[in-house]
Amino acid sequence: MFISFEGIDGCGKSTQARMLADALRAEGEVVQTREPGGSPGAEEIRRLLVEGDPARWSAETEILLFTAARRDHLERVIAPALDRGARVVTDRFADSTRVYQGATRGDLRATVDALHDLMIGRDPDLTFVVDIDPALARARAAARSDTEDRFEEFGLSFQMTLRDGFRALAEEFPTRVRLIDGDGAAEIVHRRVMAAL
Amino acid sequence: MFISFEGIDGCGKSTQARMLADALRAEGEVVQTREPGGSPGAEEIRRLLVEGDPARWSAETEILLFTAARRDHLERVIAPALDRGARVVTDRFADSTRVYQGATRGDLRATVDALHDLMIGRDPDLTFVVDIDPALARARAAARSDTEDRFEEFGLSFQMTLRDGFRALAEEFPTRVRLIDGDGAAEIVHRRVMAAL
Repeated sequence: MFISFEGIDGCGKSTQARMLADALRAEGEVVQTREPGGSPGAEEIRRLLVEGDPARWSAETEILLFTAARRDHLERVIAPALDRGARVVTDRFADSTRVYQGATRGDLRATVDALHDLMIGRDPDLTFVVDIDPALARARAAARSDTEDRFEEFGLSFQMTLRDGFRALAEEFPTRVRLIDGDGAAEIVHRRVMAAL
Repeated sequence: MFISFEGIDGCGKSTQARMLADALRAEGEVVQTREPGGSPGAEEIRRLLVEGDPARWSAETEILLFTAARRDHLERVIAPALDRGARVVTDRFADSTRVYQGATRGDLRATVDALHDLMIGRDPDLTFVVDIDPALARARAAARSDTEDRFEEFGLSFQMTLRDGFRALAEEFPTRVRLIDGDGAAEIVHRRVMAAL
């Protein structure tokens, strides 16, 4: 089983991914991973995306780099783990590209989809969108010491647009995507994830 | 006008690209460039492709990285130059990907084409394939001090397969691709290029 967590920055998805991975380990091997990155090659591509001037890549070049990183991550980490019967829990996958590009360059959504179909060709079996008020998420993100991630640097109104995009995934992919209320202590949100699972 | 030079390593295409660019400068601005690379972002992506273990990328990830570099090169260098009326002469473009992938993973040719149509969408107006006996080309390549390029590391029989691939371009794209006999002094080959132009 291939499970992803999605949501805006600071929503708690990384914590929830770790808690779910820990809970599933009682039943067998679990591989916990993340995007962008997740394999040595993908981490190198990630550095091109998160370091330097964010404006140096066009949206088109950026989705090609994200797709190259995702392809490497899928081939080197996710697919081998699934093949040997492990469960895979990833912090972000293709939905992040759909939502971020949808919020910045909505006209590219058809290109994003065509590129995904051509070069990736698979989605998780189950996706949890951790849904939270962006003002609360921002306070959480600010409390963390993560200074690398340029995705943190978008403003509040953009995070609200992103939230709408993540919520819309549940309508677009109703059998795959589950919306989880991310408000509350991590342990409470974790119980909601386990109940949805 | 957008012109590319293609051919196997050591065929003399870089020299011919420079000589043609110099000749065209009498008539106006000429931008001389190369792939993989050709723009600051594309050069960074190029380093991922040419440095480190060549086997670390799958063919699929590799064509995504080449396409990302090409998209950046096209947007930042080629298209702006053409827009201001300059001529562009490039040492390699998409045909190199078609031929190299065709020679190594022929089953990926349809994917290469679909990716090109989706994310690049243009080819040069004119392409010169500098055609030469691979044994002669190898002697020329060995005489150069270029140690970075992993494309030099393929053996002679593979270079013969590549030569067939480059020659086949002239049949596949008869209005765009011109085959140039690369045997002889650079000045003689340059006269053949000017005659074909």
